[in-house]
Parts: sequence; structure tokens; C-alpha cells
Amino acid sequence: MSRVFNFSAGPAVLPEAVLERARDELLDWHGSGMSVMEMSHRGKDFTAIAAKAEADLRRLLDVPDHYRVLFVQGGASQQFAMVPLNLLPPGASADYLDTGTWSVKAIEEASRLGRAHVVASSQPTRYTTIPPRADWQLDPEAAYVHYTPNETIVGVEFLEVPEVGDKPLVADMSSTILSRPIDVSKFGLIYAGAQKNIGPAGLTLVIVREDLLGHARRDCPTMLDYTVFAQHDSMYNTPPTFGWYLAGLIFEWLLEQGGLPAMAERNARKAGKLYAYIDASGFYRNPVDPACRSWMNVPFRLADETLDKTFLAEAAAAGLTSLAGHRIVGGMRASLYNAMPEAGVDALISFMRDFVQRRG
Amino acid sequence: MSRVFNFSAGPAVLPEAVLERARDELLDWHGSGMSVMEMSHRGKDFTAIAAKAEADLRRLLDVPDHYRVLFVQGGASQQFAMVPLNLLPPGASADYLDTGTWSVKAIEEASRLGRAHVVASSQPTRYTTIPPRADWQLDPEAAYVHYTPNETIVGVEFLEVPEVGDKPLVADMSSTILSRPIDVSKFGLIYAGAQKNIGPAGLTLVIVREDLLGHARRDCPTMLDYTVFAQHDSMYNTPPTFGWYLAGLIFEWLLEQGGLPAMAERNARKAGKLYAYIDASGFYRNPVDPACRSWMNVPFRLADETLDKTFLAEAAAAGLTSLAGHRIVGGMRASLYNAMPEAGVDALISFMRDFVQRRG
Repeated sequence: MSRVFNFSAGPAVLPEAVLERARDELLDWHGSGMSVMEMSHRGKDFTAIAAKAEADLRRLLDVPDHYRVLFVQGGASQQFAMVPLNLLPPGASADYLDTGTWSVKAIEEASRLGRAHVVASSQPTRYTTIPPRADWQLDPEAAYVHYTPNETIVGVEFLEVPEVGDKPLVADMSSTILSRPIDVSKFGLIYAGAQKNIGPAGLTLVIVREDLLGHARRDCPTMLDYTVFAQHDSMYNTPPTFGWYLAGLIFEWLLEQGGLPAMAERNARKAGKLYAYIDASGFYRNPVDPACRSWMNVPFRLADETLDKTFLAEAAAAGLTSLAGHRIVGGMRASLYNAMPEAGVDALISFMRDFVQRRG
Repeated sequence: MSRVFNFSAGPAVLPEAVLERARDELLDWHGSGMSVMEMSHRGKDFTAIAAKAEADLRRLLDVPDHYRVLFVQGGASQQFAMVPLNLLPPGASADYLDTGTWSVKAIEEASRLGRAHVVASSQPTRYTTIPPRADWQLDPEAAYVHYTPNETIVGVEFLEVPEVGDKPLVADMSSTILSRPIDVSKFGLIYAGAQKNIGPAGLTLVIVREDLLGHARRDCPTMLDYTVFAQHDSMYNTPPTFGWYLAGLIFEWLLEQGGLPAMAERNARKAGKLYAYIDASGFYRNPVDPACRSWMNVPFRLADETLDKTFLAEAAAAGLTSLAGHRIVGGMRASLYNAMPEAGVDALISFMRDFVQRRG
């Protein structure tokens, strides 16, 4: 079978050129006689791979010098605990914005380790909006402000970085990082699980302002302490070397594509044409406020939901896979991460149009 | 360049047949049109891969039904914290045996989270022995007994499982798991970083007796709670899917090789011939008590240590790589994990013999 168009929300499609290179190097990286997976993480080959990945990421995101880039494990779910363990002193409170399922998980974990104050919630609109900044009840004593710039399940995304004064702004960018340029200097800490726009599952990226290091709780496990990662260049223990290498190949590929301005243009075009077709179709619908529709995750429903299974089966037969919506909301979802080619979106729209004609 | 013989202590050599299969499947797993890396962890393809890996591991180790197998992240270093967070109630004490650097790290981390009582230490012999069981000062109130069956740096290994009565025995098997049959029922909990005998770095295996679940501390981060992993079949969040898949390929390969009895025979022969040559050489030496020499990690020193760099350079030129000892002890170290073919050991001995004739 040839490659399909894979609309999975994550783990997600990777650039074919990157997979081909990984395949060609899998048994013998650059004449070393071994796979990257077999290399000591402390040897000169792997440390060069690791350093180049970080340098390319810094170039892509224009990361200021007073920010550290960390390569950790455990996914965003582990970050939900690491953020308060490192930034929330015992007895203090942090501000959290609730814009969906992932926000709620971050709030629940912070609440187990300290106090999480919800500044606003879009739950009353079933998370199809973003609470206006003017309505947020910020706590002047909060240690930081946490939000989720993109929520994968309902498909809402902040198009701008919210202004929160001098509080450290903490963002779970798992499903939006590298999809467009961002101003890193507006953030105290950014984290992102790799399995959408960075690389394979099992790697998590953290970008943290240096002044926020050194404040972990006394009983914080060593492997959850950002400072330990910063002091050891993310090699206190053996890092996920193959994931780090693949992330580096993705970063190189992104630079070759023209970097994040080029990706933003492509992503806006991809999402724009799909939303435009959905809105005009008279058969499909997306309930999200157009002011905060996600570029990365486009959920939609069929006018006749008894056709959902038929839609998914016929789409899969046409090489368009993983289009089922998250089990919490049902319906359909097309995730359009960086590695989804525009041809995939065109093929999806064409299939959707054809499906309406045959079944609508 | 062709493949080298890679004696790295970890990340380490993987079976060439496994790498070839991973390469061939990298862009299209079994006609799915996608890489395993691109699959949703909740889809039927990946859940089948995951379940088969666990089933094969259970077959290899003959894991009893009342033990759970967990696939986690963070390496053994994270287990150093997870073990006390899950098994050591606040205020209680656990027993630790000190047989080297990795034992010390486990003890230090447990001491940050509770009380760790050192029952015996081989530090006075520079960790070249194992303290006789009769000399261990076990605490009758200890929550569990922790030891390190194989220490990679000095190269000491327990040839038998110590008897500790009815206390849960906890073992860091990172560098010995799957090298020989073990009786899992003698343990409360076994953990192992993958990057020696299991697969690529970034995956950690935990085998835990069911009655030890459900006792995590109230403030234990969700992602450090064994019970959460057990309740969600290690998919509370996105697991390291590609590492899990590769581990499954390794388990299949081990079964094809004849399972752990066959590996034990091969590993005993590989290590045996290298130790025999070292002892007889009059030029190389290994300081470890022959009663506890590691099958997996064989450190040795040259009679003339000014030749160390020459030895390493000439070995690398001959396709024998990563033979430098750990930076703490210097000298040389040949790690002979399952994937190191006997031909690699033969080539090393032949090189060592030739080196003595030319330079000794």
C-alpha cells in the first residue's frame, strides 16, 4: 500500500522526507557503523546530533539567550505536575484558564499539589469560545498564569498571546508549537509533547526562562526538576535519544520549508479552505467561534450522524485515515499538523464533497 | 562503512535483524500506509502491537498472572523516586543494599523522599565484591528491600536472587534483565531502563506484584503512580509508542533465539571466554571477585595505562567501538548485552591478543 493521508490528532503524521532519511540512516548513521539508537548519549556523535537539534529549534523559534531548552520525558501530563513542583511554592496559588479538556487536566494536577485558581472558563459554551481577556479574574498573588493555546478535542486556538502583566505566562503548546511564529519572550515557560509537530511520542520539549529555574520544591523528584535538566544539558540520565534525533530531522525539514512564517502561511491556507468548505457545505458543520478556530484540529459533524461510520469507512478506503473525533465529543476531526501536505486537505475536501453528493 | 561491533554500556547494540525489520517497516507498517510512529496509540493497530509485546515479554520471563507489566518513561533514575513514592509510606523506612554507583543513586533519591537504611555496602572493596548475605543488617520494619542485580560501572552481578523473607524485593534490573531466566515470583517489583537489553532509550519496563499497587502517596504526581499505569494499560497518556514497538520486536527476536535459557547459555559463554582470556593474558586484568563478575559488563585495565588511548583508537579502527570504561573508573569496558554476537567477543579477544603482541 502507498502512504495514506493520516489525520490523527497525535501521534500524528510525520514528514515523509524525514521518515525516508531516518530509514536510510537506521542501521548506519553517517558511516558510524551503528544506528543512532545504539549510540552512547555521551559520545561525540550523539552530543553533536543533540546540539544541532537545539540550535535549529532556537533558530526556528528565535529563542532568546536567557531561555533554556530542555528535552524531557513523560508528555504534557507529566508537565502538569512539573510546572507546580517547580514554580508553585508550598501554600501559594497559581492562575489557570480553562478552555477545554487539557486545561482541566492541568488544573486537576496542580490542585493535587497546591492551589489552582480558575480565572475564567469557556465550559458554559462547551468550550467553543475563548473567554474574553477582560473577563479573566487574575489573582495579583498568583505564582504564574497557565493556559492551553490550542485545545485538540473541540478545536479552539488562541490567535494571540494573552497579556498577563508581569506574571510568568506558562503555556501547554503540545498541539500548536512550530505551526506559526511565536514571541517566546512573552512566556515564562512553554512545554509541548512531541507527538504532533515535533517528532515521535516519548519526547517533551520545555523552553524556560532562566530566572524561573532553581525554585523546585525540596521534595521534588530529581527527574521532575527543570534545574537538573538545565544543569546537565538534559543528560542527567539517558535521554530518549532516537526521539531527540528525529526531532532534529524535523527541525531541519522546517528550516528547509522556509521556517515558521512559511508554515504559518501554509497552515492558515490548509485550515482556511477546510473551514470554508464546511461552512458552505450545508451538510457539515463546525460549532467553534470563527474567531478562535484551531489551525491544527478541525472537528466537524455530519448533518446525518447515522452516516458517521459509513463516512469513516469510505474515507479510510480512499486513503484518508484517523478522521474519527475524540471519544468525548464524537463526530469527525481532521488534524492538520505541519506534516499534513496541502494535497491531503484537498483530497479530504474532495472526498467530503463527493460523499455529500452520494449520501447527503 | 559496514556495521561495527559496538561495546557501549547503553544505549547499546541492538540485534541487526530487528533494525532491518524496523527499517523495512518504517514508512509503511504492514500495509497500513503509515509508520508505527504516526499511529494513534488508541487505534487497533498500535494496541495490537502493544498487547503482543506484553504477551511475548510475559512468555519470555514467565511472569505470573498476579504481576502487572507497565511501560513507563523516565529511565531507572525516575524509578529511584517512583519506588519510594509508591511503596514507602511517609515516616517509614526501606532497606537498600549498596553495591555500586547505581545503588548509591537509588539510595540518595529514596533519602530525599523518606528514610533509606543501607543494609550492607561493598564500597570498602571499591565495589569489586558483593556483601555476603549473612552480613546484611535487615530492618524488620522496612517497607521493602532494594538492590541492583548488576552494576554496569565496576561490572559486578548477583548470580542468585537474595533471600529476604517476606519483604517485597525491589530490583533495578536495567542492565541484566532478559540476559538469563529469573524467577519473577521472588520479587515485589522489577524495573529496567530499556536501553540495554530491551530496546531504545526512553522506555522503562516495570513488573509489579498487584498487591503493591494502590498505595501511592497522596501527593504523588499522577505520572509517577504505578496504579495509574496499571489502570490504563500504560496509556493514561500517550506512551513512547515507537520504543514499545521496538521492544516488541526484540522480544520476538529473543523467542526466536530460544528464549532466555538460550540467551543465558550464550551470555555465559561470551563473558566466560573474555574473562578467561583477560585472566590468562598477563597484560589485562579485571579486579572483580570471580564469584560475582558480570556477564553483561566486563571492565578491564591494561598493564601499561599509558597505552589506553592507543588501545581505544586501534580498536575503533578495527571496528570495535565504545570500549572506554566509565569516566568514574577509567580503563576499558566491554558490554556484552544480548545483541552482541559471539563473533564480536571473538573479534575483541583476537584484537586484544594482537595488541599485546604488538605493544605489550
